Amino acid sequence: MEALFKANFYPGPSRLYDEVAGFAADGFAKGLLSLNHRSSIFQELHRLTTEKLFSFLNVPEGYHLAFVSSATECWEIIAQSLIEKRSFHLYNGDFGQKWFQFSQNLKPEAEAHPFSVDTLLKPELLDIALDNEWICLTQNETSNGTQVHDEVLGAFRKAFIDQFIAIDATSSLGGIQLHIAHADLWFASVQKCFGLPSGLGLLIYSDAVIQKAEEIGENKHYNSFLRVHENAVHNQTHYTPNILDIYLLYRILEILPNVDELGQKNHTRAQHLYQYFQGYSEFQPITQNNYCYSDTVLAFTGEEFFIEELHQNAIKHGILLGKGYGNWKNNSFRIANFPAIPNTEIDELVNFFDKF
Amino acid sequence: MEALFKANFYPGPSRLYDEVAGFAADGFAKGLLSLNHRSSIFQELHRLTTEKLFSFLNVPEGYHLAFVSSATECWEIIAQSLIEKRSFHLYNGDFGQKWFQFSQNLKPEAEAHPFSVDTLLKPELLDIALDNEWICLTQNETSNGTQVHDEVLGAFRKAFIDQFIAIDATSSLGGIQLHIAHADLWFASVQKCFGLPSGLGLLIYSDAVIQKAEEIGENKHYNSFLRVHENAVHNQTHYTPNILDIYLLYRILEILPNVDELGQKNHTRAQHLYQYFQGYSEFQPITQNNYCYSDTVLAFTGEEFFIEELHQNAIKHGILLGKGYGNWKNNSFRIANFPAIPNTEIDELVNFFDKF
Repeated sequence: MEALFKANFYPGPSRLYDEVAGFAADGFAKGLLSLNHRSSIFQELHRLTTEKLFSFLNVPEGYHLAFVSSATECWEIIAQSLIEKRSFHLYNGDFGQKWFQFSQNLKPEAEAHPFSVDTLLKPELLDIALDNEWICLTQNETSNGTQVHDEVLGAFRKAFIDQFIAIDATSSLGGIQLHIAHADLWFASVQKCFGLPSGLGLLIYSDAVIQKAEEIGENKHYNSFLRVHENAVHNQTHYTPNILDIYLLYRILEILPNVDELGQKNHTRAQHLYQYFQGYSEFQPITQNNYCYSDTVLAFTGEEFFIEELHQNAIKHGILLGKGYGNWKNNSFRIANFPAIPNTEIDELVNFFDKF
Repeated sequence: MEALFKANFYPGPSRLYDEVAGFAADGFAKGLLSLNHRSSIFQELHRLTTEKLFSFLNVPEGYHLAFVSSATECWEIIAQSLIEKRSFHLYNGDFGQKWFQFSQNLKPEAEAHPFSVDTLLKPELLDIALDNEWICLTQNETSNGTQVHDEVLGAFRKAFIDQFIAIDATSSLGGIQLHIAHADLWFASVQKCFGLPSGLGLLIYSDAVIQKAEEIGENKHYNSFLRVHENAVHNQTHYTPNILDIYLLYRILEILPNVDELGQKNHTRAQHLYQYFQGYSEFQPITQNNYCYSDTVLAFTGEEFFIEELHQNAIKHGILLGKGYGNWKNNSFRIANFPAIPNTEIDELVNFFDKF
C-alpha cells in the first residue's frame, strides 16, 4: 500500500516514528488490545508507561500522570475542577486564546494578557493580581510557531511562587528540553512530539494540584480532576482509554534517548532550518524576534497567492506542508520539526524549496 | 509474539476481529495516521465511515453521527447540553445507575426507577410525569447480563411520544438487531460489539435532538453537544480523535454483513450457550427471567468460592472469563458473546466447562 505523502510536515497529527507500525503489530499479536482497562495487566502497563515517561522527561518527585482523551479536554478539566474563581492567561496566538475562552466560559472572571508574536515575556515586570489562582501559558503556540522558552518559564516560577502555573505543551512536550518543576501542571498530546497516532492526551500534575482539587472538591463530571486522579492512583483511567496508544507510548519510550538529548538535536535542526529559510525573501517567520522561534513548529508568512502556490506545489512533490491557522490561515505555512521526522525527510523538504 | 490468552470473554475491551491487525498495518503504511484531523482526507474518511455505519445499522433518515471519546462522556454530554431540568432513568444494574448518578450530579431533579433483574418492563404501565424531558434506558446492562428487548424499546417509543428517549447501547450496538427509530439518541463504544481497539465512542442522534440542543443553547464545554454536532456536520470532530479507530471501523464495516444478519447469528449462538449452561447446577444466569437474557453479555452467579475457583481454572486453561461487576463483583462471571469472537473460541469455552 502506497503512502499518501513522501513527507508530512503538518504540525499534528503528524509523522509517526517508523517503529510504531511494528509495535502496533506486536500489541495486536499479543492480544493486549483485547484486555480490560481495569485488569491487572493494564494496570502494570499504566505503571510502567508512567515510569518510563517520567524518566524520559526527567520529572522530579511529587508529580503524577493521568491519561486523558485530548489537550482540549485538559482546558476543561483545569477550569472545571482546579480554578475556584480566576485564572490569568497569557497568549499570543489562537490556541492560547481558545484556552482563555474555554476557561472564561466556565469561570467568567478569567483574565487575559494577550501579547504580540514578537514579545519576549518578562515575568518580573508583569502586573498579575495575586488573587489569580492560576497562570496559564501556552509554551509552544502551534498556530504561529512561537515558544516561551524554558528559562522564561523558570522566571515565571520564581516571580509567581504563590500561584499555580499550568502549561499547554501540546506541541512541544517530548521534543524539547523543559523543566517540569517550572510548573504545577502540564498537558500534551501524543500525536505531536511523541510521534504516535492521535487519540491520547497526557496530564502531568504536582502534589499541590491534588491538594487544591481536594479543597475545591469538584466531583460532578465524567472528567472531574478528582475522578481522573483517583483512577490514576490505581494505574487506571477514568474512561475506557486508547489502550493501543498507551502501549505504543510505552514501546517508543523504550527506544528513545532522554528528552534532553533528543531536544538538543531537535533544537539544532530547527536552527539550521531557520538559517536555511533566511535565504527566501518571499516569506519570513511570523515572529520577527528570533528568541521567540519555536523549535518544534516553524511558521512562515508571505503573500496569500504565493503561499497558496507553495502549498499546491509541495503536494505535487509529495510533500505536505502545514496550512496556516486562525489569523494566519491564508498567509502562512507551517513545518513540524518533530523528533519523529527523519533527517532524510527534512532533506526532501530542503530539496523541494531549493527547486521552487 | 505469543498471545496472552487463547480466548478472551471479557465484555470489553474484548476480542478484536481477526482482520483488525491487518487493517491497522494498512493504515500505518498509507500514512493515514499522520493526517491532520481537519484535512479533507480525514473529512472523507469521516463521511464514508458514517455512511457505512448507517447502512450497517439500518439507520433511517434524519439521524446523525458524532465520534466521541467514550460512552461515559455521552452520559455527560446528554446531561450537560440536552436536558433542561429533568431526565427519568430506568435501570436494573450498575451502568444504568451510574448514568442516573452522572445526570443527577449535573441536573439534580433527575428521577430514577430502579427495577429488578427479573422484571420485564411494560412501558404502558409506567407512571412517568410528562415534565421529564428524557427517558434514559440502558439497553444492555453489561454488569448483570440483562437486556431490554427491541420490542420493549418500540413500546417505549409508542407510549412516550412526547419525550426524548436516550439509549445506552454500549455493549450491544453492532451485535444485535435494534431499530434506531425507537429512540432519539443512542451511544455505544467500538471496543464491544464492533470488535475494535478501545478509545472511541459513537453518538447517534436525531434532528429533533439538534433542535432541542439549540433551544437550550448550552455551549460552554469542550464537549458541549452543539460543538460536537457543529463539527460532525463538517465531517470533523470536536477534539483530536482516535483516527486509527475511525479508520478501522471503516474497514471492518466493509466486510461485515448487515447487523440484522449478524445479530440473528449472534442471538442463535447466545441461545445455544444459555441452553448449554442450563446443565450446570453450580451457577445460573443472574436474571431468572429468560426474556431478560442478554444476547451479547452472559452473566452467571454462584457461590463465591466456586466462582473464584472457576476464574482461576479458566486462566490456567488460557481462557479469560469476565469478572463480576458492582453488586455481583465476587459471585458472578460474565461471558462476552460479541460477534468478533469466532465459534472456535466458543468451542474452547465449552470444552473448558465440559472438563471443569
